[in-house]
Amino acid sequence: MYIRNEDTICAPATVPGTGAISVIRMSGPQALEIADKVIRCRKGKLSTAKGYTLKFGTIIDASGAVVDEVLASVFRSPHSYTGENSVEISCHASSYIVSTVMGLLYEAGARAAEPGEFTQRAYLNGKMDLAQAEAVADVIASQNAAAHRIAFKQMKGGFSSELRDMRGELLELVSLMELELDFSEEEVEFADRSRLDSLLEQIISHVSRLIDSFRLGNAIKNGIPVAIAGATNTGKSTLLNALLGEDRAIVSDVHGTTRDTIEETLNIDGVLFRFIDTAGLRETDEVVEQIGIQRTFKKISEASIILGMIDLTRDFESTRETIRSIIEKVDFSCQKLIFLLNKTDISDVRANTDTTDLIISELENKGVACNNAAIIPISAKTGSGVGNLRTHLADSQRDLLADSDTTLVTNQRHIQALTDARTSLLRVRSGLAAGLPTDLAAQDIREAIYHLGSIVGEISSDEVLGNIFRNFCIGK
Amino acid sequence: MYIRNEDTICAPATVPGTGAISVIRMSGPQALEIADKVIRCRKGKLSTAKGYTLKFGTIIDASGAVVDEVLASVFRSPHSYTGENSVEISCHASSYIVSTVMGLLYEAGARAAEPGEFTQRAYLNGKMDLAQAEAVADVIASQNAAAHRIAFKQMKGGFSSELRDMRGELLELVSLMELELDFSEEEVEFADRSRLDSLLEQIISHVSRLIDSFRLGNAIKNGIPVAIAGATNTGKSTLLNALLGEDRAIVSDVHGTTRDTIEETLNIDGVLFRFIDTAGLRETDEVVEQIGIQRTFKKISEASIILGMIDLTRDFESTRETIRSIIEKVDFSCQKLIFLLNKTDISDVRANTDTTDLIISELENKGVACNNAAIIPISAKTGSGVGNLRTHLADSQRDLLADSDTTLVTNQRHIQALTDARTSLLRVRSGLAAGLPTDLAAQDIREAIYHLGSIVGEISSDEVLGNIFRNFCIGK
Repeated sequence: MYIRNEDTICAPATVPGTGAISVIRMSGPQALEIADKVIRCRKGKLSTAKGYTLKFGTIIDASGAVVDEVLASVFRSPHSYTGENSVEISCHASSYIVSTVMGLLYEAGARAAEPGEFTQRAYLNGKMDLAQAEAVADVIASQNAAAHRIAFKQMKGGFSSELRDMRGELLELVSLMELELDFSEEEVEFADRSRLDSLLEQIISHVSRLIDSFRLGNAIKNGIPVAIAGATNTGKSTLLNALLGEDRAIVSDVHGTTRDTIEETLNIDGVLFRFIDTAGLRETDEVVEQIGIQRTFKKISEASIILGMIDLTRDFESTRETIRSIIEKVDFSCQKLIFLLNKTDISDVRANTDTTDLIISELENKGVACNNAAIIPISAKTGSGVGNLRTHLADSQRDLLADSDTTLVTNQRHIQALTDARTSLLRVRSGLAAGLPTDLAAQDIREAIYHLGSIVGEISSDEVLGNIFRNFCIGK
Repeated sequence: MYIRNEDTICAPATVPGTGAISVIRMSGPQALEIADKVIRCRKGKLSTAKGYTLKFGTIIDASGAVVDEVLASVFRSPHSYTGENSVEISCHASSYIVSTVMGLLYEAGARAAEPGEFTQRAYLNGKMDLAQAEAVADVIASQNAAAHRIAFKQMKGGFSSELRDMRGELLELVSLMELELDFSEEEVEFADRSRLDSLLEQIISHVSRLIDSFRLGNAIKNGIPVAIAGATNTGKSTLLNALLGEDRAIVSDVHGTTRDTIEETLNIDGVLFRFIDTAGLRETDEVVEQIGIQRTFKKISEASIILGMIDLTRDFESTRETIRSIIEKVDFSCQKLIFLLNKTDISDVRANTDTTDLIISELENKGVACNNAAIIPISAKTGSGVGNLRTHLADSQRDLLADSDTTLVTNQRHIQALTDARTSLLRVRSGLAAGLPTDLAAQDIREAIYHLGSIVGEISSDEVLGNIFRNFCIGK
């Protein structure tokens, strides 16, 4: 697929503002000729320069005034980001210069690029598939090593090749079915059916694994959700401040999240955590407070890690109640629980051991093995023990970083396509089990192939493309 | 002068944030070798690449994970901005990637550049003089065509060559004096003295012209100050809004200006104007209000243009009083006055002609020629006539833009040096007039040469350099 765009597009590719350098990017069939009209080089023309070379030149406006001295990088089709002839103009980072140069490029025949249009051209010119193109935006937005690794792998085609393999397997499935069709009169059905069934199971489980990876992939992208739960006034906010205060790499609040609970993101050893301070848990008849507590339950159920705050200065009864109410909310099959024994600075040493014993016995009562929960004594106020908590959090997520070969799906559009593909495949399975004709099943398999193909853009409509690239930044 | 720096420095050269491209700049004797350690190129090494070429490469961290795929531009000494070997790494604009790449460059032997250190090296390596280096920061900060033109001319050495010429003339002066000294016994003094005097006058007037240009140069850089004066509630703020509303290119408040009066900057046809809304003028005994009015007087005295607001709906007496109090404040030798007859939308047509007549007669009473003041009827509320005002403002400053050959000094340090030079030259003049020995005068001329030389950095201390480059942005 090679679609030639007739327009030559240009856009600033660097963040606007006062800096040392700004880069203006131009791509299209006339890129080099337009650059020649705007940039006067001492030695030769840009349109005759080799690819992957730089030229020093002067930009002069209509009145003859020098706008800037620039460096122009020349890229020749197909060896460029877009696959087209391209020029990158590196000028002084002044908004006056950038807007003046842009104006001159427009006059010389270029037009302003739409958001994501450079990457869209790279896709249309076969430089990358759609999943890779979408990952470009994720690479740029990545705030931590783990999210960056997922996005970069997808950009380099890791996910795409996995999808290609699955497509190959589905095509094999179709051919097995056609074989069965051809020989259906001759009773060969049974022999091939087991191979067909096992292949189908294998693909369904692969698609399911990808769908399941979304929870984790999304957590890494937007921050592993950590809910801080506990009774009111047990020092939850103090803990948040202690955690945030220790680290200079504070990331501001996650965009787009609902603000009904306080959320702060924090990068610990390359993993982004999203701390959610929940309303204190307690029995109440008050309607408004009940709503708050329901919300807390929801936040807790969505978290990957739950920090259970225990105030060591409280009495036995209330402590036990808090422990029980926290344990009750945790789904130990997919959530980690860390009890924090807070206020070690002002509590008795005995309170520490007594509460630890109490937690262990409560866990045993619920039939939860002790290694499913951690207990860390801290003082949120003095910061003592907070370092331990950070280490524990980072360690608990180390697997994510170590296992870079697992594909994690982070894109809502991809999840939708995978879910649609799985629905088709499940129909194939039930159809075959019910003895339906294999040609009907083959139709469902073609649907699954279609859905998987839509992820990499083998099948795509203008509307889908528009939705994807509209969210890119200008100049990418 | 060629000072070789042993350190290799690096810094992000683009504005941080989420964009398409970020550029990291590295310069120094080990720049290419350090780049080789961090960037793996498919074809050959950066250290063996020709200058002015680009290479595509991959950056991999200590754990073996791919950080990014980048383009590296290679520059070889002396053909680079700094005059040293340099590499510009163009990567995806993610703060995670930029900070990771910076960390890898540090590990490989580079250190973080100080603000302005690249330009400082360009200066130390003789790529530009000090006045040119200072202009780099001004070019970046320029918000409009006029300021940009001044800064760019200085950066390209226009001011420097003017100073060089003056230095040559001063050296000729010294030689004329030495000639006089040699032949002082032989009565040749008189013949050369007239040449000496005229040369001295010429240089003094040149230095004075440069000093005087500061007011204008500074006005262009920070915005031509326009004071809006008039009685209270005559529509001054409405006018400001009308002016601002018509133009999308609104520049936010000037940084660092005192906020005791409202100031807004506005780019009209490439010239930056700084509008100052002053407290209404009226007689008062109230102490606090008097202070406000004193402040208004000061703002008016500092403005280049004064807009005198006249409310057409007021009575004759109060209008005449306002006109008189405005005319009184204007220094017609260096300030322009524009009377605005406001509220044309609700006033009588006769009010318009009557007030115009009144203004003309008041100007005549003060002995001011009519062409020293303009009269423009407007309605700040409906916007009628505001376009006329804009055109008039732009036209009145067109000379600044047309005459690009005049040097305008915009830098406080340069003004100080020029003022010191003039003081020395005036001492030469009075000394010669008083018949003091010419060898004493020659000493003063050497001082003047010293001061002029300090502008381009022929004489400079570490302290002076530190002060200059500290205010640059990182990466420049």
